[in-house]
Amino acid sequence: MLRLNQLMQQLPREIDCGVIMSPTNRQYFTGFSSSAGMLVVTKEQAYLIIDFRYYEKAAREIQGCQVVLLEDYNKQLEEILKKHQCKTIAVEIERVTLAEYLRLKDYFTDYAFDTTSAFSDLINQLRMVKTPDEIYEILAAQEITEKAFDHILNFIKPGVTEKQVAFELDQYMRSHGADDISFETIAVSGKNSSSPHGTPTEKPLESGDFLTMDFGAMVHGYHSDMTRTVVIDKPTEEMEHLYQTVLEGQKMGLEAVCAGKKGQEVDNVVREYFDQQGYQGAFGHSLGHGVGMEIHEQPNLSPRSQTILQKGMVVTVEPGLYLPGKFGVRIEDMVVVTENGCRNLTNCKKELICL
Amino acid sequence: MLRLNQLMQQLPREIDCGVIMSPTNRQYFTGFSSSAGMLVVTKEQAYLIIDFRYYEKAAREIQGCQVVLLEDYNKQLEEILKKHQCKTIAVEIERVTLAEYLRLKDYFTDYAFDTTSAFSDLINQLRMVKTPDEIYEILAAQEITEKAFDHILNFIKPGVTEKQVAFELDQYMRSHGADDISFETIAVSGKNSSSPHGTPTEKPLESGDFLTMDFGAMVHGYHSDMTRTVVIDKPTEEMEHLYQTVLEGQKMGLEAVCAGKKGQEVDNVVREYFDQQGYQGAFGHSLGHGVGMEIHEQPNLSPRSQTILQKGMVVTVEPGLYLPGKFGVRIEDMVVVTENGCRNLTNCKKELICL
Repeated sequence: MLRLNQLMQQLPREIDCGVIMSPTNRQYFTGFSSSAGMLVVTKEQAYLIIDFRYYEKAAREIQGCQVVLLEDYNKQLEEILKKHQCKTIAVEIERVTLAEYLRLKDYFTDYAFDTTSAFSDLINQLRMVKTPDEIYEILAAQEITEKAFDHILNFIKPGVTEKQVAFELDQYMRSHGADDISFETIAVSGKNSSSPHGTPTEKPLESGDFLTMDFGAMVHGYHSDMTRTVVIDKPTEEMEHLYQTVLEGQKMGLEAVCAGKKGQEVDNVVREYFDQQGYQGAFGHSLGHGVGMEIHEQPNLSPRSQTILQKGMVVTVEPGLYLPGKFGVRIEDMVVVTENGCRNLTNCKKELICL
Repeated sequence: MLRLNQLMQQLPREIDCGVIMSPTNRQYFTGFSSSAGMLVVTKEQAYLIIDFRYYEKAAREIQGCQVVLLEDYNKQLEEILKKHQCKTIAVEIERVTLAEYLRLKDYFTDYAFDTTSAFSDLINQLRMVKTPDEIYEILAAQEITEKAFDHILNFIKPGVTEKQVAFELDQYMRSHGADDISFETIAVSGKNSSSPHGTPTEKPLESGDFLTMDFGAMVHGYHSDMTRTVVIDKPTEEMEHLYQTVLEGQKMGLEAVCAGKKGQEVDNVVREYFDQQGYQGAFGHSLGHGVGMEIHEQPNLSPRSQTILQKGMVVTVEPGLYLPGKFGVRIEDMVVVTENGCRNLTNCKKELICL
């Protein structure tokens, strides 16, 4: 069934009309990418008001939605509201700016605005559960990411800088089918690897360094996300132990993912294990997050996440341990939640690689 | 004087405290880049509340602002409000989401919120006028952009696709000092060039095509922006005429830029000229926009812009004429406004290049 139909049918009773202005959600529901436009959803019909640059293409391509040539957003929205006898308007409260909301509110003084999270929650709920089509695109992105990893293993050697590693990964992905990179590539080594989200520096790789690379590709609007930590030359015993602990935790995390569990339950399995191993406080971020049209989306696998995992959700499992002033390790796979567990979308060696 | 001091001193009388949460504005006023954090500005003192990942570096680097380790945004903001006896809080209405605003409003029930554009306007006013340091960064970005243009002239030939041209420009800029590209590079040819903001396609360049390239580099957070239209092989008389008309309009636009004029006055000079030349309706966008930490920022040179140009503003002058079904031409330079005119930051041939 069309996503837009699902949205129309599941619109909460108290909302007569939902207005979507954010590019990502507009594209998700219409399948059409544009930098501007207003998607208006009532219980009976959906409308996309869009300017002359996109109108023709949109009218030709979009199904299950009436495409309207933009003249005046407010007046055209008003017509739709009157036609469908709407009284309550909902906006995407997490995405609309206060100014955009106030402009609507000032014009539509005779209407009630729903500023609860109900409408956003419904959109997130739909977006969280991926269709096979979406998983296919994510896999395409992941495939490029893995090829880039294979490539970078031959590029890494002492003297090469973190920035050069990040740049090489980016260039490789872009020239091997990625429409873009997923996010700013992380490549941190030695002491820098003790920072979970450090920026690549001019520091050259040195013998005995850990090197953590967190990167991904974007294909047709969908993202991938992967992290691997390798060692230059040989690890010390302490490094080897830290790596094995993270790897063990990561495997436990993967095993814990399952439809029906809360995000926090999965996070907790790994966090408790690390605590037991004596690493209290060294895992300073969440276990994972959803991936799709955005690199970070719902659901979260965090200590506070009450979201119940469902079949078809795509999440990362990326525990890390960071020893300030020393080094850090993170290992990240991306998985799709299944009824009895999860399917790993990442097909890439996790045993410690010494280069 | 520190930007933050200017902001504190110019805070409107009715605003006791301004809260800045958007990354770009936070970085503009503190000089410190971070993905999260809350900048709190009172008339006496500014505070940056920031999490453990950034705290140490921020405390070391930021001047004229008290850096506070994040524990709880609301509670820490409340302490500041009490300490400075603030009663009115302003937010960046164009940047804060409705949800972010509602969360603040729900917590700070004893305070008044200023939701006029006063605070945003002040921030924009400060950001619009560039310091020499900022212009220096923009010039560095522009230099890379121009080198990429020189490079691409040798790359362009019949059979090469629009996507390949865009990709080559991107790769060149990234491997010659750009931290990133400024925006998605436009490379449109033949009929596609009649769309002002088309996306590069697999269409190969053909003899007799116009090719419009709109691109820029980002360096240290600052952007550049340039457009050139070239012709593959030779233009027809109609193409030659269109190009000369746009070029003449662009020169008139550059001559019209001057401190003290309204944005719309400058736009109007070029728009009227094109109308006189018989191209009514063929210049379907604004003449230009501000450039800085964002690729599109204030002021606009648009038919509606009431903003008065000031010395130190950086704007583009980019007229274009687009003949649907046929072709289009756009020529864009970036200039800094001076007392008596403007200084062109673009140093790149504008006469029609035949390749």
